[in-house]
Amino acid sequence: MEEKKQNHIQERERLEQQIRFIIEVDKVKNIFRQTYLADGQRKENDAEHSWHLALSAVLLKEHMKEDVDLTKVMVMVLIHDLVEIDAGDTYAYDAAGAATKREREMKAADRIFGLLPEDQGAYFRGLWDEFEEYASADAKFAHLLDNFQPLLLNDASDGRSWAEHGVHKSQVCRRNERIPETSEIVWEKMLEIMDKHIEKGHLKAD
Amino acid sequence: MEEKKQNHIQERERLEQQIRFIIEVDKVKNIFRQTYLADGQRKENDAEHSWHLALSAVLLKEHMKEDVDLTKVMVMVLIHDLVEIDAGDTYAYDAAGAATKREREMKAADRIFGLLPEDQGAYFRGLWDEFEEYASADAKFAHLLDNFQPLLLNDASDGRSWAEHGVHKSQVCRRNERIPETSEIVWEKMLEIMDKHIEKGHLKAD
Repeated sequence: MEEKKQNHIQERERLEQQIRFIIEVDKVKNIFRQTYLADGQRKENDAEHSWHLALSAVLLKEHMKEDVDLTKVMVMVLIHDLVEIDAGDTYAYDAAGAATKREREMKAADRIFGLLPEDQGAYFRGLWDEFEEYASADAKFAHLLDNFQPLLLNDASDGRSWAEHGVHKSQVCRRNERIPETSEIVWEKMLEIMDKHIEKGHLKAD
Repeated sequence: MEEKKQNHIQERERLEQQIRFIIEVDKVKNIFRQTYLADGQRKENDAEHSWHLALSAVLLKEHMKEDVDLTKVMVMVLIHDLVEIDAGDTYAYDAAGAATKREREMKAADRIFGLLPEDQGAYFRGLWDEFEEYASADAKFAHLLDNFQPLLLNDASDGRSWAEHGVHKSQVCRRNERIPETSEIVWEKMLEIMDKHIEKGHLKAD
């Protein structure tokens, strides 16, 4: 009886920690990215972006060169931007922001994943570290999703974000330099989209 | 050589169908629910809601009475609201809307999942049907997430959505009548939240 009561107290404590985390991460719904929605009407936030990546993971897994663990990749993309709650969104082509990004994000990861029961916090932190290291097949797939989805939205919204920031094809290629080794067919499609928008004048040739 | 070329054409065709779907479902980012974000500043959209459920699935799985398939539940919650692209959001306590909801949503499912390569469309449709049937342990977990998350947001935003709609505790209990058989501890927490907001005057006692 005493043990049952003790277990119940512990389970409730875990639930309370999980709820604090669930409410804390609600803030990513107010962190806006530079990418416009497909209809071009407003910018996308981190929660919407992460939802889109997890869903796309299910569909695009088949195009990856290496075997990937779908569940792991889904969780990875669902949490990959949580550090922006404290560290903010750094635009892909913002060199000044990039210099301090790593330190800001490490601190944020400590705080945010630290809200969870220890085992769950360590699990998320491990996935976030793996994503940042960009070494495993799963991390490569997650990065492909993270880069391909904004490209598709940019395409649908007539290259609006590229045009606004005066982005060059070489910048997009540098950011995506590991896509060819991750999926040839996705890279082929990305090049097609870039070339179409160079022709339309939204993306600068070099 | 000829076979390789043929495979490439088929893979590209699948990729194009997947991209059309990915862009089409971008529309759920503009479908707003009756729930406010935790900060109470604006209503939540379907993409944000679905992201929040998938993430919560990872954390709350341990509290379910029955074993569940996490991957399946994550995919289920990521897609469960896509039919609202055509059918719109029906508020949980809107009786008139509920009467025509089923037919509107069935049609929407045919069209939206029909955009995908046949095998992937059938997979998503199967998961959506399973969610709607509310029979399996996985569907029960998905519904728990779908009901618990707005309750948590309602709690964080001072019961704003309940107060605006004049909602009664008995309505919330009826909507959540299958939570006790899904997770006792989550149900215990839900009751606590409801009672707190009755005391605060945001939710009506019966």
